[in-house]
Amino acid sequence: MTRMPFDVLRALPDGARRGRLQTTHGPVDTPAFMPVATHGAVKGVAPWLLEELGATIVLSNAYHLAQRPGVDVVQALGGVHGLLAWPGPILTDSGGFQLFSLAALVRVDDDGVEYRSHVDGRRGRFRPEDAVMVQETMGVDIAMCLDECVPADATAARVEGAVQRTTAWAQRCVAARRRPATALFGIVQGGFDPALRARSAAELVALGFDGHAVGGLCVGEPPEETRAIAAATVGHLPATRPRYLMGVGTPRDLLTFVSMGYDLFDCVLPTRNGRNGMLFTREGKLTIRNARHAGDTRPVDETCACPTCRRFSRGALRHLMMTGEMLGAQLASLHNLYFYLHLMREIRAALDEGTFPERAERAAGAWA
Amino acid sequence: MTRMPFDVLRALPDGARRGRLQTTHGPVDTPAFMPVATHGAVKGVAPWLLEELGATIVLSNAYHLAQRPGVDVVQALGGVHGLLAWPGPILTDSGGFQLFSLAALVRVDDDGVEYRSHVDGRRGRFRPEDAVMVQETMGVDIAMCLDECVPADATAARVEGAVQRTTAWAQRCVAARRRPATALFGIVQGGFDPALRARSAAELVALGFDGHAVGGLCVGEPPEETRAIAAATVGHLPATRPRYLMGVGTPRDLLTFVSMGYDLFDCVLPTRNGRNGMLFTREGKLTIRNARHAGDTRPVDETCACPTCRRFSRGALRHLMMTGEMLGAQLASLHNLYFYLHLMREIRAALDEGTFPERAERAAGAWA
Repeated sequence: MTRMPFDVLRALPDGARRGRLQTTHGPVDTPAFMPVATHGAVKGVAPWLLEELGATIVLSNAYHLAQRPGVDVVQALGGVHGLLAWPGPILTDSGGFQLFSLAALVRVDDDGVEYRSHVDGRRGRFRPEDAVMVQETMGVDIAMCLDECVPADATAARVEGAVQRTTAWAQRCVAARRRPATALFGIVQGGFDPALRARSAAELVALGFDGHAVGGLCVGEPPEETRAIAAATVGHLPATRPRYLMGVGTPRDLLTFVSMGYDLFDCVLPTRNGRNGMLFTREGKLTIRNARHAGDTRPVDETCACPTCRRFSRGALRHLMMTGEMLGAQLASLHNLYFYLHLMREIRAALDEGTFPERAERAAGAWA
Repeated sequence: MTRMPFDVLRALPDGARRGRLQTTHGPVDTPAFMPVATHGAVKGVAPWLLEELGATIVLSNAYHLAQRPGVDVVQALGGVHGLLAWPGPILTDSGGFQLFSLAALVRVDDDGVEYRSHVDGRRGRFRPEDAVMVQETMGVDIAMCLDECVPADATAARVEGAVQRTTAWAQRCVAARRRPATALFGIVQGGFDPALRARSAAELVALGFDGHAVGGLCVGEPPEETRAIAAATVGHLPATRPRYLMGVGTPRDLLTFVSMGYDLFDCVLPTRNGRNGMLFTREGKLTIRNARHAGDTRPVDETCACPTCRRFSRGALRHLMMTGEMLGAQLASLHNLYFYLHLMREIRAALDEGTFPERAERAAGAWA
C-alpha cells in the first residue's frame, strides 16, 4: 500500500509544524480540528454550515454507523460521504473507545470484542479485521485501528496487556487492508507510563501506518499528566507522518499540543458545551443562561464573525436557550465550532508566517 | 391613524387576488404564508435560512413573549425584530387563542382574561388594552386584537356571547392604539353559524381595522364546515383590506382559501410534521421513518430545490430521524417550509400570469 501523502510544509525547532494531508476527498491543512459527527451528523449543524465555518475534515464513528444504519445501508447511500452529505475528507474512529465505555462491552479476548448492541441489544463480535472492513466498505478517508482501551485507574498489568493486545490487533488490521484509498492509523496506548507509551509507539511505527494516533488521554487525569504523556510520546512518532491526539481538548490544549507537534484533534466540547449554553469567547467562558445577559444587545463575542454573532444578540440567544428552542443549541454550537475552527486557522497562519504561538494565543484570548 | 397600505394588484372574478402589503419593515406580497415562531424562533430554522427559503413575514405570539423574556427585555433587545433576528415584517397573534387553549385560563370576564402563567405559575390579567400595548411596545408590524375563543362544541349562547365580547374588546383595542407603525387586525369569531360570522365581521369592519382575520376555524371541525364558514365570511370582509385566515392549513387548504380571497395564512404543520418525520412532497405525504427509505439515494422530492433536497438523500435523512439527531428535525422542517413557501410563490405567479389555479395545482401536486 502506498501511504497517504503528508507534507510537512514548515516545522519549528520545538516541534510545532504546518502540514498538508492529501486524502481521496481533498486536502487537509494541518494542524486541523475535526468536528465530531458520531452518529452521522455534527449535532445541530448542517454540512453547508460546516463548510462556511471552515471545517475541512469531519470525524464519525464506525462502530455506531455499523450498528445504525448498518454497513450495507451506508454503502447503498454512497458510503459515509453520502450518509453525512459531506463531500470532503472523513476520518472514522473504529469505535474501540465507545465499545469500552458504553457499558456495551460483554467480553474482550485476543480475538476481539464481544458487545451487546446499544441499539437493539443484540450480541455481536467486533474484531480488528471487522474494524478495517467496515471502515473500508464505508469508504472513509482515514480509518482507525481497533485498540484496547482501559480505564484511567487500570493496574499496570492491565495497561501492559492492553498495549500488547493493541499491537497484535494493529498487525491484524494492517493485514486486513484491501482498499488503498482508505488510509489507516494505529493508536498508541500505554496509560500514564512513558516507557509503555514508547514501547507501544515503537511497535506500531514498525507496522508502517499512514499516521499515528495517541489514545487513552483526557480520560479524567490531571492536565499535567496529559501533557507529560503527550510530550513523552510525540518523539516516538515519525515526523513524516501525521499525529492525531484523540479527544482533545480545550482551546488551550490545542495550542499546547500543536506546540508539541500534534497535527489532528477532535473533541465534542464545542457542540456539547454549546447545547448546554456554555460559549467560548476570547474573554473566556460565557454562560449564556446567566440572567445578566437577558437584555444584552452585544453578540456573544464582539470580535467574532460567525453566523450567530453576525445576527444574534446575547439576549436573544439566552431567550432561545431558556425556552428550550432547538435553535438556541444550534446557534451556540455554531459559534463554538467557529471559535475552534478559527483558532486552528490562526494557528496555521501563525505557523506559516513564523508568529507562532503569539498570533494563535491572541486568537485564543483568555483560553491561551 | 392612517391605514397600513395594501394594494390589490390583480383580482379574479371568483375572489382570488394578488396583493401587496406595505409594512414598516418592508413589503409582503400576498397571498403569503407566515412561518410560525411562537416563542421567538421558527423551530430549528435560523433566520438566514428563512430568507433563503423565501419567507417574507414571520408570525410570533405576544402573550408568550410577554411571559418570557418579557416586554421590557424584548424592548431592550430592539423589539421583536431584534429578538427574532428577523429584519423583515412580523405579525404577532395577541395570544387569545393560546390563553384559551393552554389550560392557563383562570377566568374571563368583560374586563379581560385572568390567567396563570405557563412559565412561572403567577396569576396575571391580560386585557384588550394590554394586548395592544404589548404588541406596540415590542414594535410588531401587524398586531392582532384580543378575541374570545370558544371550543368547537360551545353552545349557541356561548358563541354569541363570545362574538359580543370580541367586538367590545376590539373597540377597546382600537381606542388603545398609540403607534401608527403597528397595524391592527380585528378577528372575526362566530363559530359555525354563518349569521353570527356575518354579524361579527360587520361589527369589526365598522371599526376601521388595517385588516381582518378569521379565527376559530380548523379547531377540529370537518373540512367542509371550515370551507363553508370561510366562504360565508369572506364576502363580509372588505376587498380593500388584507384577509388573514388564522391557523390554516394543508397545501390543499391554501389553494382553497386563496381561491376564496384570503391573503394571509399561518400554520405549524410544516415544522411540526417535519419534526415528526412527515414530509410534504408533490407526490403526497412521505413518512421518512418508513423502512423502505433506508437505502434510498433519491432526495425527499425529486423536483424540489430546497437545501435539504439539494444535499441529503431520503436514506440519510431517515437515518438522522431514526437516531434522534436534531439535524434530522431541522432538515425536515426546512424542506416542509420550502414546500409551503414555494407553493405560495407559485400561487402568486399563477395569479400574476392568469394561470390560477392550474399552475398552483401543479406545484401542490397530490396535495391539490
